[in-house]
Amino acid sequence: MFASRFFISTLKEAPSDAEVVSHQLMLRAGLIRKVAAGIYTWMPTGLRSLRKVENIVREEMNRAGAVEVLMPAVQPAELWQESGRWAHYGPELLRFQDRHQRDFVVGPTHEEVVTDMARRELKSYRQLPRHFYQIQTKFRDEIRPRFGVMRGREFLMKDGYSFHASHDDLVREYRNMHDTYSRIFTRIGLQFRAVAADTGSIGGTGSHEFHVIAETGEDDIAWCPQSDYAANVELAEALAPNAARPSPTAGLQKVHTPGVKTIAELANFLKIGAERTVKAIVVEGDDEAGRAPVLMLVRGDHELNAIKAQKLEGIADPLAFASAEAIQAAFGAAPGSLGPVGFKGRVIMDRSVAALADFVIGANQDDWHYTGANIGRDFTEPEVADLRNVVAGDPSPDGKGALEICRGIEVGHIFQLRTKYAEALDCRFVDENGREQVMEMGCYGIGVSRILGAAIEQNHDARGIIWPASIAPFKAVICPIGFDKSEAVRETAKRLHDELVAAGVDVILDDRGERPGAMFADWELIGVPQRIVVGDRGLKDGVVEIQGRREEQASKFSPDEAVDETVRRLTPQTTD
Amino acid sequence: MFASRFFISTLKEAPSDAEVVSHQLMLRAGLIRKVAAGIYTWMPTGLRSLRKVENIVREEMNRAGAVEVLMPAVQPAELWQESGRWAHYGPELLRFQDRHQRDFVVGPTHEEVVTDMARRELKSYRQLPRHFYQIQTKFRDEIRPRFGVMRGREFLMKDGYSFHASHDDLVREYRNMHDTYSRIFTRIGLQFRAVAADTGSIGGTGSHEFHVIAETGEDDIAWCPQSDYAANVELAEALAPNAARPSPTAGLQKVHTPGVKTIAELANFLKIGAERTVKAIVVEGDDEAGRAPVLMLVRGDHELNAIKAQKLEGIADPLAFASAEAIQAAFGAAPGSLGPVGFKGRVIMDRSVAALADFVIGANQDDWHYTGANIGRDFTEPEVADLRNVVAGDPSPDGKGALEICRGIEVGHIFQLRTKYAEALDCRFVDENGREQVMEMGCYGIGVSRILGAAIEQNHDARGIIWPASIAPFKAVICPIGFDKSEAVRETAKRLHDELVAAGVDVILDDRGERPGAMFADWELIGVPQRIVVGDRGLKDGVVEIQGRREEQASKFSPDEAVDETVRRLTPQTTD
Repeated sequence: MFASRFFISTLKEAPSDAEVVSHQLMLRAGLIRKVAAGIYTWMPTGLRSLRKVENIVREEMNRAGAVEVLMPAVQPAELWQESGRWAHYGPELLRFQDRHQRDFVVGPTHEEVVTDMARRELKSYRQLPRHFYQIQTKFRDEIRPRFGVMRGREFLMKDGYSFHASHDDLVREYRNMHDTYSRIFTRIGLQFRAVAADTGSIGGTGSHEFHVIAETGEDDIAWCPQSDYAANVELAEALAPNAARPSPTAGLQKVHTPGVKTIAELANFLKIGAERTVKAIVVEGDDEAGRAPVLMLVRGDHELNAIKAQKLEGIADPLAFASAEAIQAAFGAAPGSLGPVGFKGRVIMDRSVAALADFVIGANQDDWHYTGANIGRDFTEPEVADLRNVVAGDPSPDGKGALEICRGIEVGHIFQLRTKYAEALDCRFVDENGREQVMEMGCYGIGVSRILGAAIEQNHDARGIIWPASIAPFKAVICPIGFDKSEAVRETAKRLHDELVAAGVDVILDDRGERPGAMFADWELIGVPQRIVVGDRGLKDGVVEIQGRREEQASKFSPDEAVDETVRRLTPQTTD
Repeated sequence: MFASRFFISTLKEAPSDAEVVSHQLMLRAGLIRKVAAGIYTWMPTGLRSLRKVENIVREEMNRAGAVEVLMPAVQPAELWQESGRWAHYGPELLRFQDRHQRDFVVGPTHEEVVTDMARRELKSYRQLPRHFYQIQTKFRDEIRPRFGVMRGREFLMKDGYSFHASHDDLVREYRNMHDTYSRIFTRIGLQFRAVAADTGSIGGTGSHEFHVIAETGEDDIAWCPQSDYAANVELAEALAPNAARPSPTAGLQKVHTPGVKTIAELANFLKIGAERTVKAIVVEGDDEAGRAPVLMLVRGDHELNAIKAQKLEGIADPLAFASAEAIQAAFGAAPGSLGPVGFKGRVIMDRSVAALADFVIGANQDDWHYTGANIGRDFTEPEVADLRNVVAGDPSPDGKGALEICRGIEVGHIFQLRTKYAEALDCRFVDENGREQVMEMGCYGIGVSRILGAAIEQNHDARGIIWPASIAPFKAVICPIGFDKSEAVRETAKRLHDELVAAGVDVILDDRGERPGAMFADWELIGVPQRIVVGDRGLKDGVVEIQGRREEQASKFSPDEAVDETVRRLTPQTTD
């Protein structure tokens, strides 16, 4: 490709409404242009990357045995009425009436259409399993579109739906998709994690989100760099510390802590680390004793995890913090000075608290705390449970290293729908024994356009985008210095272009006649992985210069070597 | 591809609302399934053909120098208000309000969006010309969707828009697109014609429609099998007959023709051919004489062409037939017995009438005609003009043969928009002299999904579709007889499959275990170009059978020869 036959349009500054770096860079590099809020035109450069993502997704879905279809964007309301979503879906659902006053939606997702198709086409167990997918433009009327293509209103999505005769077979396909999604994101070249969205067990009524790791992500993820463990922070298990509880060395001593309410104030007042204090939280129980207060203890530097707390036996659902009156009645003090010493009710401590000795805790008297508190000696040994959010450095629940906390951008989601839609739309098959049964369903989504934003969030520097080669708009760019003036430069540049094309490299030759500085800046902004500079000065010495987008310096090669070297640099390194 | 990993779903009968054969066959062959009126799901088999059309279009557009983009389906109303189409576009335009009550449309076409892009991106003559195109799902709320994908509401379209510094350059690109479209339809393998939609001159403010020739088309086309001439019947020029007017041999004789009103009745009454009679039509003039009646004469077997008649000097625009009163006053008779003899007003005769002698014409007296009428002798020599529709057998206007009349399905349209949208949206550039000028624009559409319907209308038989190989869902199918029972059959079928794949042939192996009759019927219905039958009986003689979809009989080849033979049959024959 010659740049003069293509269309490059870069900007010095991003518009001020671009909040995140990927949005700014996509605008500056000319990948997208805004048409309305959350609605973009994919410009030639951006579309090339989009199609590359699309093709990788398609190839891997086909390889996994899914079959591509293309369902309509416009769907009749009747199907949504049948599933019940017509009433329940919020204003993100774009609804309209056609010229004959019939109700339609512009589909944000296709469970209804595909289930309607399945109930017409799949009648027998012999036709199962089936997995249909499509890659299609979707519309969701987001209330506040932002982050460019990461939370746009019109976007490209791969959505797949599988149909099964049994839950076991659904689980088989769910695993297959788990592996396929991992292959897709690995092949694209992204650092990602499959995050258990609930139970963490792939066999359960499960759901996994695939997140690209990036500082700017919207979700907090606990992950283990030494293994493939990952979970939403709120769902990751906090293991007990390895070390056993030390023996007490200090005596219980009541100290006056006037005005001290928070752990930070307490640690500061006593000049100790927060990890030597214990936080007391009082929630409502829910058992034969009614809504009696339950005391929960977590280490001062930890946070109570409400989801974990609520899942315990005898705890009110949803989780409810005890009222000031109930606390006063049960403890004789207000929050800020609470503790287990002398408390008659139920006490549950986090696994980390269970490993403490000689800690600081409230004395159940306003403005007083105990130092040198010890479990068993100063109060009855409480129940132990996982009560807190994990923090960086915690051991990974799979025992393979230490957790890190990062932010993630959700780019994929796999989900065992089970019979939710099949029941509603009466999607049945005849089993081997001639009995009618409701199908089991899975659904599997990938945000195709969103992947580009996520890839940029993960891969950029001050000069611009750093594309993984698999989805770069071009894998290499030839930058000739003086293309119009020097015949040697022109001939060499064209020859390298033709030889790279012949070698299967997606290359662009910049024949626009820009000055070197502006030309280099454009291609660094656009993020093309390999740059080949052809200039008279180098040619005099018989060399051209190759520089990877992440490299600080160029390397010199003869024009004859340059093609092989470029191919070599672009060939994925197999690590196994 | 193995059929068990694909999804084949054929029907014995097409639903009764499928009026045309392509719609029936697309449903029966499982290419599409209806979701709502004019809204379809593309099933796996249909989607494969759709993607093949799309890829041919994309490759040829890229080769022609156009650059692909992807504009949003959803467009803000502001742009349509700027162009004026918000007010003028009819109910085919799907309009809606988003959750913030802002007006949007689901774009049936993208002139506004692309012109908005051009006015932001293209500032200088140095950036021109530019041609942006996209392949995208469109929505038009047709009042009566029908013919399946040929007149659906949601459909796939290639729309391209070019921007130019001058009309000359627009004409250059228009010719380029004329050639590109011809290449596309030739490569797909369709019999088509580029039909002049108005002037017929490619350089004018022109427009050409590309029609696939098919009996079931909606448009009448005059075309010349000996050349590339084609035009809408209403626009094709009817040349003068080659032979000069014979000398009179009969005298003018007034005959009583009681109750005879039409040409058919007249010819029948007089026992002569309609081509020996002349039809008189009275229209309103429009000149200094006011709306005086003008008499137009065409041969009895011809039809007056209203467009041609109206274009003549001094004829009312729009064309108006004279009232019964005006005719009575001017001719003294009612329609059915009119003629030029004794008429004092303006008379215009068609070129074919000008070559007649001894013809029959109305006598301007109710129920009376003249036989033996002759021009010049019996009435003043009238003006001569092209007044009629062409008919089959007329000489082609390019002098290269005789015209045929056929029906066509419009699958492409190229159009010189000139400055219509650029003026409205103020899309300007700075020319070489530093002056601001409005851009010249062209637009170029291809109905990608419609092509499939048109291809089937042109290529089918009683057994089903006959795909051109270029867009067949599969180019070859291997039909094993007893796949599950015979190891020899299974091994040979698999080996042929793998070898054909290795040879680049898009092949499917039918391992569904259907009986031969049902299996063959499925693939004939689906229209796969080459079928290879592998059975124990043949293998005993060392052969498999290959049969082209248009062939009545199979030919025998050894399994080793079969791959080469299949490749040979699928290789396009170059004719130049």
